[in-house]
Amino acid sequence: MISASFDFIGSMPLFPMTARNTTVVADANAPAITHMLAEFVASHPSKGWSDAVEAQAHRTFANWAGCAVGPSTHETVEAALGAVKELAPSAQASVLGRSDRVDMANAALLNGISSHTFDFDDTHLKTIIHPAGPVASAILALGEHLGSSGRQIIDALVLGVEVSCRVGNAVYPNHYDRGWHITGSTGMLGSAAACSRLLGLNAKQTQMALGIAASQPVGLREQFGTMTKPFHPGGAAKVGLMSALMAKHGYTASPRALEAPRGLMQVFSDKTDWKEITENLGTSWEIELNTYKPFACGIVIHPAIDACVQLREKHNLKPEQVAKVTLKAHPLVQELTGKKTPTDGLLAKFSVFHSCAVALIYGRAGEHEYADDVVRSPLVIGVRDKVELIVDRSIHEASVDVTLETTDGQTHHIFIERAIGSLEKPMSNEQLKAKFVDQSTPILGAAKTEQAWNLCMSLATQTNLKELIQSLTQ
Amino acid sequence: MISASFDFIGSMPLFPMTARNTTVVADANAPAITHMLAEFVASHPSKGWSDAVEAQAHRTFANWAGCAVGPSTHETVEAALGAVKELAPSAQASVLGRSDRVDMANAALLNGISSHTFDFDDTHLKTIIHPAGPVASAILALGEHLGSSGRQIIDALVLGVEVSCRVGNAVYPNHYDRGWHITGSTGMLGSAAACSRLLGLNAKQTQMALGIAASQPVGLREQFGTMTKPFHPGGAAKVGLMSALMAKHGYTASPRALEAPRGLMQVFSDKTDWKEITENLGTSWEIELNTYKPFACGIVIHPAIDACVQLREKHNLKPEQVAKVTLKAHPLVQELTGKKTPTDGLLAKFSVFHSCAVALIYGRAGEHEYADDVVRSPLVIGVRDKVELIVDRSIHEASVDVTLETTDGQTHHIFIERAIGSLEKPMSNEQLKAKFVDQSTPILGAAKTEQAWNLCMSLATQTNLKELIQSLTQ
Repeated sequence: MISASFDFIGSMPLFPMTARNTTVVADANAPAITHMLAEFVASHPSKGWSDAVEAQAHRTFANWAGCAVGPSTHETVEAALGAVKELAPSAQASVLGRSDRVDMANAALLNGISSHTFDFDDTHLKTIIHPAGPVASAILALGEHLGSSGRQIIDALVLGVEVSCRVGNAVYPNHYDRGWHITGSTGMLGSAAACSRLLGLNAKQTQMALGIAASQPVGLREQFGTMTKPFHPGGAAKVGLMSALMAKHGYTASPRALEAPRGLMQVFSDKTDWKEITENLGTSWEIELNTYKPFACGIVIHPAIDACVQLREKHNLKPEQVAKVTLKAHPLVQELTGKKTPTDGLLAKFSVFHSCAVALIYGRAGEHEYADDVVRSPLVIGVRDKVELIVDRSIHEASVDVTLETTDGQTHHIFIERAIGSLEKPMSNEQLKAKFVDQSTPILGAAKTEQAWNLCMSLATQTNLKELIQSLTQ
Repeated sequence: MISASFDFIGSMPLFPMTARNTTVVADANAPAITHMLAEFVASHPSKGWSDAVEAQAHRTFANWAGCAVGPSTHETVEAALGAVKELAPSAQASVLGRSDRVDMANAALLNGISSHTFDFDDTHLKTIIHPAGPVASAILALGEHLGSSGRQIIDALVLGVEVSCRVGNAVYPNHYDRGWHITGSTGMLGSAAACSRLLGLNAKQTQMALGIAASQPVGLREQFGTMTKPFHPGGAAKVGLMSALMAKHGYTASPRALEAPRGLMQVFSDKTDWKEITENLGTSWEIELNTYKPFACGIVIHPAIDACVQLREKHNLKPEQVAKVTLKAHPLVQELTGKKTPTDGLLAKFSVFHSCAVALIYGRAGEHEYADDVVRSPLVIGVRDKVELIVDRSIHEASVDVTLETTDGQTHHIFIERAIGSLEKPMSNEQLKAKFVDQSTPILGAAKTEQAWNLCMSLATQTNLKELIQSLTQ
């Protein structure tokens, strides 16, 4: 009876809580952030930000699109699509890289899954959120169905990313440490916000959309290494889109679903720094802090790859010239990526040795360079075995010191303070394009890839999404 | 860089964790409950339980069906259906009480929402889980599409309820206290289990389905009092169904998604009593502990209503004969339901005075007796004003002592130890039928209602679901 009476209390917000609540230290005076974010998303003017933000929005979108096209025939996407097709979904929106069209909610799901399948998308380093997946996947699907303009997509993207990253800033790192995969567990809010904007919902409706989405966080870190990891941004995209549609039709939620003592943020994090949400909203932009992975492997290997690519280019090195490569790096590099003789592509992603070898041979370390046959090729193994790692605690974990000896007795040295792709040393648009091309060309061919890149990077000027969608699909 | 490297650790289960994890005390030695539950769901024999369990399964199903039909034209269902219809869903499965057909995942969602909209469904009192909503909503939608038999539905129902309630037992009350609405946050596991069974998935596939669902808990108590509360069982139903479909197509998840240090249960609860899952699995049955609400209001009022209904029947009382009603009850009754003069239906649900009045006048307290016009009728107000509440700490909160004086000077007394609908005093099948009829007749008419009740209660003998679905829809 005790239990039942507490259920009753819960359903009755009119009465004071006589709670048995001992585990949660609740903050009943949290600012009204659900309302504040809703008002912001609904009323911030189109392109109410600097050209730098605008450019970063296009880079974020283009990088996401390439990352969704690249794995579009991967078994992960095939399995999810198989399940979705059992619903006999209507042909509302496109699955990128393919000829399939499904209902917009499931298009959001599938493109979100695809874009994170190679773990090669974007990173908001402050929170480790991969921000585009949940947001871009939802608004491209919804926008295709609605006939939205490119301008509307870019606006929704910037605002949606702002919402999920600010909520992330408020709860990181405690929330992540507790085991939540923060990309999906804040992403449904970014998606709900962006879809609300695209649907033209008012602030009250947007507040309800955020509230409905708050009941549906997606993602556990336990799933890393399985197909459910890329499910998280996809699931978050779908949740946000459906929440916005429900709010449009008058579905209600708690107006304080994020900040209340039993709202999402206090429930799933023991850190809730409200200032991360309330301060400078509309004047500073989280999308400016977005970064893009240049290499298809864990970030601790990136400085070594960057070093090897630079040595190769500067000295015009051929694989057969490499006699010895000596890396000095932080112990974490050894601990996390010390696989000396990886036997397949997945293991090679945790091998700094393999990664340096492909960087020296091919000048890059994209998804192709982690294919099983590449990992097992005698050429790669030959160079890989010449790479040596010396652990040096005095070197920062984001840096590396590389010395390369050639077969004709020359010695080349390079020190990488911060790798390409870091916030301090962002990828240029040319490098971002090369990454896009690398992922898209095998799926869509060179002509469509070139067109898709140009359309992504000029998205705000497109009056509708038709050409863009055509260029990104079969 | 620190942050990024931890993301990297997370994606690499092959290596030891050098975690910054200070907030969660993780149990790395948790038994393999994801596997155990999957094996159980996939291989437990059909009707591998007592007749009592079998009967309770039918009662649970019938009660759920009536509760889904009753609110099927409520604004909550209309709003959700409006959103779903924007997806132009295929006509795979029926929305109960209506003529609409939508894809099976969204039929699961809508029927789950509907069945909890009046907060009148069922309760597993040990955990306050409302078990049928997530499970029955999913399997009826899936089963309609698959052409399943009634036997298969009952088997899936019993096994699905077992999974969600056992997980609930393991984490209750801490998980609930933290702010999760346990019906939705364990319900997606029950739904995934039940749908896996209905699809005939093997143990390995079922384990993946549970794992995919584990990343998608649904529900915050903060939402109580809004449409998002009934969304929770609906959302859980949909999540479970989609998770099972994805597992069928080879989608993967962590095999320890429930019990791992970063699995769902350790992430969202600081109590994880594994024995609640591992002991007596397949020999004791949680569905035997399911109860059904006889009255459409909070449980603390139920003893008083029961008392008034019994006094009315025993003494053949007419409203005009009531001179004075004196309730002696636990202070919680005053605190939670002390609204002396409620002005609309929602407030009346928190008024023991209104509830006693309708019980004395109409002999029941269903959803109709909380309609606004009933609350405002002079007849009801007249009796309501004759009800007096005396707080008595010596009376158990599940009991009530009622003395009724009539206008002709007689005094009637009754003491209710436990109300009808409690575990100690379960509703008879006749009472359960009366509740079903009360909800279904206004929507489907008397003939279909009678047929639907009979088909629900004999479900295990139906070779398919066609007649049942016809009787439960327009």
